[in-house]
Amino acid sequence: MKALGNHVLVEFYECDSDVLNNCEFIEREMSQAAKMSGATIISSNFHTFEPHGVSGVVIIAESHLTIHTWPEYNYAAVDLFTCGDSVDPWTAFSHLKEMFKSGHTSTIEMKRGQLHDIKGELKHKPNAAGVAGNIT
Amino acid sequence: MKALGNHVLVEFYECDSDVLNNCEFIEREMSQAAKMSGATIISSNFHTFEPHGVSGVVIIAESHLTIHTWPEYNYAAVDLFTCGDSVDPWTAFSHLKEMFKSGHTSTIEMKRGQLHDIKGELKHKPNAAGVAGNIT
Repeated sequence: MKALGNHVLVEFYECDSDVLNNCEFIEREMSQAAKMSGATIISSNFHTFEPHGVSGVVIIAESHLTIHTWPEYNYAAVDLFTCGDSVDPWTAFSHLKEMFKSGHTSTIEMKRGQLHDIKGELKHKPNAAGVAGNIT
Repeated sequence: MKALGNHVLVEFYECDSDVLNNCEFIEREMSQAAKMSGATIISSNFHTFEPHGVSGVVIIAESHLTIHTWPEYNYAAVDLFTCGDSVDPWTAFSHLKEMFKSGHTSTIEMKRGQLHDIKGELKHKPNAAGVAGNIT
């Protein structure tokens, strides 16, 4: 059975709480993780919460990376959703683990969009050259 | 064991391909799904791909909703990530199932950020009143 997407759900425990509350740092390193994994960034959007916590997303041509942090619990939930064979989400995982100084992680890798009846080559999202880039 | 987040991973199969290629419609109905589920929208960001497909995210005070569509396979991958008890992701699921005219769905519900050592009330993301709203 073929699948359209690959989704790695990551729990980063025992992180540096100061890092998890630094929106600018998190956006930069999430973008860096996307680039290192071979992804093409379309947009990024990050928000700081009061009294603490950051939420954000990097939309890539090959799907997305998201993060939600709870500095008070030294925890971040990260999703690395990719499609195609050119992006390695585990490179992004390793980079973020180091940046967040996570002492304990848990990961689950899941196939998304499993199809029975595909014949021939499986089409994924087009690459960056095919992105219309419409932002609404 | 307590958990910080609740994550519903949805596969919408056998959808209307025209709907899955309509970026404006998808953004509107994803936002509507967020509102119907009781979430507070912080931002939304949607993109059209060529020759087909839409990717987008609605960041909510209680985490996020994301979507990636493959109209050519009548398929959409949707993630409904929420925290706190005030948001019902299944309301969003039902609305989107109807809007996409999905003939077959598959869902997995997962707990994110499972913590052993929480004492007292579990803190979730602050509500909308606590959102700093910093967009970088």
